[in-house]
Amino acid sequence: MAVGLEVLKHYHPVNGVNIGIAQAGIKYAARNDLVIFELAEGSRVSGVFTLNAFCAAPVQVAKKHLAEGNIRYLVINTGNANAGTGPQGLADALETCTQLAYLTEVDAQQILPFSTGVIGEPLPMNKLLAALPKALEVLNDNAWVSAAEGIMTTDTLPKGYSQQVELPAGAAKKPEEKDVITVSGISKGAGMIMPNMATMLAYVTTDAVIAQPLLDTLCKELADKSFNRVTIDGDTSTNDSCILVATAKADMAEISSKEDPRYPAVFNALLNAFTVLSHAIVRDGEGATKFVTINVEQAANVQEALDVAYTVAHSPLVKTALFASDANWGRILAAVGRAGVKEMVLEKIDIYLDEVCIVKNGARAASYTEEAGAAVFAQAEITIGIHLGRGDISERVWTTDLSHDYVSINADYRS
Amino acid sequence: MAVGLEVLKHYHPVNGVNIGIAQAGIKYAARNDLVIFELAEGSRVSGVFTLNAFCAAPVQVAKKHLAEGNIRYLVINTGNANAGTGPQGLADALETCTQLAYLTEVDAQQILPFSTGVIGEPLPMNKLLAALPKALEVLNDNAWVSAAEGIMTTDTLPKGYSQQVELPAGAAKKPEEKDVITVSGISKGAGMIMPNMATMLAYVTTDAVIAQPLLDTLCKELADKSFNRVTIDGDTSTNDSCILVATAKADMAEISSKEDPRYPAVFNALLNAFTVLSHAIVRDGEGATKFVTINVEQAANVQEALDVAYTVAHSPLVKTALFASDANWGRILAAVGRAGVKEMVLEKIDIYLDEVCIVKNGARAASYTEEAGAAVFAQAEITIGIHLGRGDISERVWTTDLSHDYVSINADYRS
Repeated sequence: MAVGLEVLKHYHPVNGVNIGIAQAGIKYAARNDLVIFELAEGSRVSGVFTLNAFCAAPVQVAKKHLAEGNIRYLVINTGNANAGTGPQGLADALETCTQLAYLTEVDAQQILPFSTGVIGEPLPMNKLLAALPKALEVLNDNAWVSAAEGIMTTDTLPKGYSQQVELPAGAAKKPEEKDVITVSGISKGAGMIMPNMATMLAYVTTDAVIAQPLLDTLCKELADKSFNRVTIDGDTSTNDSCILVATAKADMAEISSKEDPRYPAVFNALLNAFTVLSHAIVRDGEGATKFVTINVEQAANVQEALDVAYTVAHSPLVKTALFASDANWGRILAAVGRAGVKEMVLEKIDIYLDEVCIVKNGARAASYTEEAGAAVFAQAEITIGIHLGRGDISERVWTTDLSHDYVSINADYRS
Repeated sequence: MAVGLEVLKHYHPVNGVNIGIAQAGIKYAARNDLVIFELAEGSRVSGVFTLNAFCAAPVQVAKKHLAEGNIRYLVINTGNANAGTGPQGLADALETCTQLAYLTEVDAQQILPFSTGVIGEPLPMNKLLAALPKALEVLNDNAWVSAAEGIMTTDTLPKGYSQQVELPAGAAKKPEEKDVITVSGISKGAGMIMPNMATMLAYVTTDAVIAQPLLDTLCKELADKSFNRVTIDGDTSTNDSCILVATAKADMAEISSKEDPRYPAVFNALLNAFTVLSHAIVRDGEGATKFVTINVEQAANVQEALDVAYTVAHSPLVKTALFASDANWGRILAAVGRAGVKEMVLEKIDIYLDEVCIVKNGARAASYTEEAGAAVFAQAEITIGIHLGRGDISERVWTTDLSHDYVSINADYRS
């Protein structure tokens, strides 16, 4: 069902990142369900996490450990989200760190735990702990393909990104020598929250040398342009996490500010990774048959642009019209109208389907034909452009349609 | 598909209300699609309307005319919403009033127009105007059954309510003589906005003698406990209207304040009508197989109670679990967590399915069994109780599940 999603077969190793994978048998036997990232000493790590008030035990632990810095390992299990598990869940997440720390001779605070899978079931700790040494035994720098598969739950395809990018000349080198950085990452998720499974997870790594404060700013800004702008069904998981790692192993001088001439290239290299990995989640959205960009322009401010974009993106009526390839502009217009934006003027609203103007000044465009609209809506990838006529702010979110398969997947999951 | 919805076959006529119906052929031939309410002189009329920023032409006209008072006629057409129709739509709504005013010898401002049906198509004025005299010819006090059918669009069943209620002794009469009032009403709608059709419409009439300021207060308060608490899919129509008429024809002294000893009985009589008519819309919701009450208790204030209730009611994952009769408490808990309530504490949350406690202190209740949850979820009518442990405010909303038929109805409508 995935829309325009290709499986990446070749990843560039990232200097300073090793990956180990094991079959812990947490929910299913004979399936890779435990992934460990080993990060070189000196790596800088940043992260953004779910805003759900009830964040899962591993998220609570990861946020705390991340604040203390000097992270050396990420440990990810599928099959069980360790969410809604109370004090025992918190103890289990900490015990995972403690055991891995013992095996690797680091401190428990240097480990970030992640879990994805069934909510409300206790984590089978014996199985998980027994698999830790097995994953450590096979640590190597070229296990990205398996790692992308190893963090999948109900994803239909693994999701990955890898590029090498040449930066403009850096300050500390001769002008003719250019820095080269590698960016590789994986993500998972097929709904902002899965049926009973939870979670969007993303791990982007680079060998670039980026100062920690700048990395933190970057992680937040990039997530706001990617993972925080995709929505399948509006439901936010208890476990969502997006981690950005810079191992500092590339042969380059550190980048510590946005004024660095190399910064735009680094920003774009990472943005590409975040964009591809976040869009991959939408493309593999539950029951998705369409990949839809909602592009709100001419807003007075960011908040109203997002309010309009999300109201349209979450409208079941717009989503079912997308599934039906029905260019039903009345539903789009009605969703814009109920977005809660004060003093919106109908007569200033224009709506486009790709390049086709369907609504002009709040009513059907004179130039519009059903054929032109139907031709756009028949495509697998569509941009809905909404011009509010109120200012010059733009925001963009990405979503899917609402299909019979969405209902089937979510209604039949536990049965 | 309607859940527990019975068709009312007998209505009590309301003194001061006559109804005329005609076949205008606006969208379909040989179908009652024009309904006129004639209200006795001296009737008091109040109304609440859609909050959608892009309200339809007839809503704009009705709000304006209502503000001027002394309403004598309501005119309702189906088959065309006269929404998204620009200046011509406004002219058409006004022209409808002007013509009906000419035929009935009242002022155009004494008429409220309502339209429901396809968005974005011009109203076929010739057909509509030609049917006005036909509807006037057959005005009578006993046409409620036909009126309930005459305002239907994709509703599967007509929706009505009728009761006579004895009030406690009134001030202006001997203590042993009690006032009797009649309340009859109809509503329509099977989604807060229909596929391409729009609109929830409701008309509640009584012969009670209620002062205009009190009637206005009542209409707002009653709508907030009923029509403003039901949701199918979160989409608010451009045409939603709820009208309360008091003809003042009952043999009773006027009620002008909440301190009147008869007020509670009047309030309850009208609340019953508003409740039954608003629930009927949910029961006939598009693709509905379940009638669900979301009951949020122990909130710190009304807004957070409603935020939680609507987040749960609109969650596609909760709605598909309801369709599947899957007592998936993780989805309910996750929806509560993302409702945006500040400083919510997981450990204080309890969740009930009818009387069965499924979540206690934020984790699965020790007493809970899958069998007990499944037994509740197998019912056609379910109450989800959510206790936030933050205060003593309660709010309640009503909704449906999300079924394959919802997708089919909304995806296939125009095809």
